[in-house]
Amino acid sequence: MKLLTNHRSIRNYQHKEIEETVLIDILESGIRASNTGNMQLYSVIVTRDSEKKKLLAPLHFNQPMVAQAPILLTICLDINRFYKWCSIRNTEANFTNLVWLLNGTIDASILAQNICIASENQGLGICYLGTTLYNASEISQVLKLPSGVIPITALTIGYPERIPEQADRLPFEAVVHYEEYTDFDESRINELYRDKEELETSEKFVVENGKENLAQVYTQVRYKNTDNDLFSKKLMKMLIAEGFNFD
Amino acid sequence: MKLLTNHRSIRNYQHKEIEETVLIDILESGIRASNTGNMQLYSVIVTRDSEKKKLLAPLHFNQPMVAQAPILLTICLDINRFYKWCSIRNTEANFTNLVWLLNGTIDASILAQNICIASENQGLGICYLGTTLYNASEISQVLKLPSGVIPITALTIGYPERIPEQADRLPFEAVVHYEEYTDFDESRINELYRDKEELETSEKFVVENGKENLAQVYTQVRYKNTDNDLFSKKLMKMLIAEGFNFD
Repeated sequence: MKLLTNHRSIRNYQHKEIEETVLIDILESGIRASNTGNMQLYSVIVTRDSEKKKLLAPLHFNQPMVAQAPILLTICLDINRFYKWCSIRNTEANFTNLVWLLNGTIDASILAQNICIASENQGLGICYLGTTLYNASEISQVLKLPSGVIPITALTIGYPERIPEQADRLPFEAVVHYEEYTDFDESRINELYRDKEELETSEKFVVENGKENLAQVYTQVRYKNTDNDLFSKKLMKMLIAEGFNFD
Repeated sequence: MKLLTNHRSIRNYQHKEIEETVLIDILESGIRASNTGNMQLYSVIVTRDSEKKKLLAPLHFNQPMVAQAPILLTICLDINRFYKWCSIRNTEANFTNLVWLLNGTIDASILAQNICIASENQGLGICYLGTTLYNASEISQVLKLPSGVIPITALTIGYPERIPEQADRLPFEAVVHYEEYTDFDESRINELYRDKEELETSEKFVVENGKENLAQVYTQVRYKNTDNDLFSKKLMKMLIAEGFNFD
């Protein structure tokens, strides 16, 4: 399916607004995606206001597309609405636990991906902001999210200024296993990662960061252990403050 | 986008195999989806063998489509491959924490949704199996997943026997907020849930289960607190055994 296999993340946008009808179309396409038990435990916050974007940009590590994109969507796990409904209907849900954190994350992600595809079908480009989980608590304050609404991911959307090269992927056999998982030995890993490691961009990345290889750039520069610990602890603290229980 | 807005979950399939080229096309469409840092921390296990389906069916609460569908895909968070690469390249990743559990869940879900859309584009029908997280550890044993590979969701895929009615959705305004979250008061909740509650299927559901309303069916029958606790504890136990740390 060309629309899917041609995907590129777009980080540079034209100064061109997105029509209201187009926005509604892509959001409705999102909402039609499958979700757990049809409870729709998610919400989408649309940011178009430039003042709001200025507040959100530093929370996404000042990635320029946050301020530049005409629209930023923050996709949230939302148990608030469902809890309110239950309370009015004289019952109580118990979704502040690990399984429902993950169920809601899956549903929010599936919704987000439908939004991406509907956007690309309209000639728009999208970029996911993985930074959302790192500063979920601060983003929640800017968007005035009540308790039980957790930012999971975010998307910048706009008309592409240019279409970049497509990112590489590992060979199909690195990802797909038939019937049972076939584990990898050293020579198989070397084979599967060879093309990625030999890319000009990878080699440049290694030199610029003064490392021996790409795996070291990933683990010692880009996704450092201290950052992983810090952001996990921050997020855990937020979830516990919102009533989640992981015992 | 018609393909997205026409979506229905399909639980009854024709006795018709899925061609190998079609399977590869839908999997490749999945792999082209965005993912965190292009590390591809996911794997897909393809189940076509009927003996394997028989082992997996009870782990999905014997939902009939598991045995009936020509293909079952189990979509996993996979840090095993990446960890192996890092170890061979003389470095170490630290992804056994909350943020990377969620990052991997997001990436696996986005991949799954691309697979769904590519499948529907080929005339196939899909159904998500939310049961995957409930029995992740047992599913892992059947599929011989090594440590660091966690089943997140699963899909049954096949040619639809019939196209069912489309499931309802809450009004758009229940899900989408502009600039800031607008919280709901009682009369707003009543308005937003009215159509859902008045559906014939909902009313039947309430009567059959001997409850007062739909919210009570959801919370006291379908997703009971004791089950939520049980499945969360089981999953936590598995993740901790796999080296995850949530302190």
